[in-house]
Amino acid sequence: MKKKIKNVNASILIIGNEILSGRTQDKNIAFISKWLNSKCGISVKEIRIIPDVEKIIVENIKQLSKRFSYVFTTGGIGPTHDDITAKSISKAFNLQYEYHKEAYKILENYYGKKKFNDGRKKMAKMPRNAKLIYNPSSAAPGFMTKNVLSFPGVPSILNSMIENCKKYLVKGLKIHSQTLNIFTVESNISKQLGNIQKKFIKTVEIGSYPFFRLGKIGVSIVSRSTSKNKLNQVKKELLRLIKDKNIKILKI
Amino acid sequence: MKKKIKNVNASILIIGNEILSGRTQDKNIAFISKWLNSKCGISVKEIRIIPDVEKIIVENIKQLSKRFSYVFTTGGIGPTHDDITAKSISKAFNLQYEYHKEAYKILENYYGKKKFNDGRKKMAKMPRNAKLIYNPSSAAPGFMTKNVLSFPGVPSILNSMIENCKKYLVKGLKIHSQTLNIFTVESNISKQLGNIQKKFIKTVEIGSYPFFRLGKIGVSIVSRSTSKNKLNQVKKELLRLIKDKNIKILKI
Repeated sequence: MKKKIKNVNASILIIGNEILSGRTQDKNIAFISKWLNSKCGISVKEIRIIPDVEKIIVENIKQLSKRFSYVFTTGGIGPTHDDITAKSISKAFNLQYEYHKEAYKILENYYGKKKFNDGRKKMAKMPRNAKLIYNPSSAAPGFMTKNVLSFPGVPSILNSMIENCKKYLVKGLKIHSQTLNIFTVESNISKQLGNIQKKFIKTVEIGSYPFFRLGKIGVSIVSRSTSKNKLNQVKKELLRLIKDKNIKILKI
Repeated sequence: MKKKIKNVNASILIIGNEILSGRTQDKNIAFISKWLNSKCGISVKEIRIIPDVEKIIVENIKQLSKRFSYVFTTGGIGPTHDDITAKSISKAFNLQYEYHKEAYKILENYYGKKKFNDGRKKMAKMPRNAKLIYNPSSAAPGFMTKNVLSFPGVPSILNSMIENCKKYLVKGLKIHSQTLNIFTVESNISKQLGNIQKKFIKTVEIGSYPFFRLGKIGVSIVSRSTSKNKLNQVKKELLRLIKDKNIKILKI
């Protein structure tokens, strides 16, 4: 088993004009981020959404792969002209863009020799020495190049594949989170909440998010930490604050 | 009326740990992008999602405001400790972070003098000379600093405000789009589609997106252009391709 280290992080790079234009509502960000968090102890630190333009993909791969432990890309690995993720990653790392033998075989088997046309063959082209991420839904594999992991953009396919990249990842410490939903307005507790955050600044991240539920205004206070103990300390302070202010808690 | 110029673009900067962690599903990206596209002829070229960390916000504001005509930020303008967007933008542009007189009055009127506490007052603090974006839902205004427009993260409030920033924007040429939904697989048309894209490379952007509907696999071909004429030419070529391949069109 790989050693768990504390600061493993990731960025997500969504490649696709359809998300930028608003035509398609992204569903991959929340899925990948939650999965990394809960299954691998990896925090997503930055997400970018960029167009299907080679120069821009290359530039972003170079930047993000240097700054984060892992980069997860989605989109642009299909058979059409706007699918240029594999080629762009090859360029970013100065690697040959070529047929991956195993991917070629997988796709040839899946489609049958007769129906294995150029568009489909394109899905077997990857940066040299890429590691495959198997695809149980539609055969065409994702791949890992250095610290960059590439997935298709279709959420159902991506969801079915994600477990298959787990073996390539160094895990971080599990991040625990705790939410208190209370019936008040943010400004009623902002000062005290700021003080609690200051006290635990190095170990717990506290966020405050307004909500509207059951016809009432409320606030979700979300605390996140790798330490359950610190989380409990924060919870105690929050409950004291809530009691002092005579605020009701929403039970879900 | 302001003159319409062709290349007006924008980026969106989503500020908030809750989106990064996957706790909250973003709904603002598609809304803002569609609105800019349809109402202002402005294309969104890059989107970033970053945490509530001052240094990171400052850095991103500096970078994006140089590269794009406009930057739209969402999140981090409420009353709590993690709301640091206004302060960070002030830093990025070396501007005083101070009470905006009109915003102060609006909020004081809304809450009444007695209930206008420090948390609420914080929402009137902005970069010097910010222009207000009025908020018909919950009073606290958004603001425009140089070419950066700042909105709250709560979708319903953002949606209610967006029209109020229109007067500050230089409009671009309207971008028309046209979608053909057809029952085939991408690899069946990828070569010909690539050729059509090449022919119209300078004027029309063609994207191809697989879908699953009525139990069948299909492809949406989306073409976008500022020229209706070019779009029609592309449509003719696509219809010819569809006819040649004997592909059915999905009528919606």
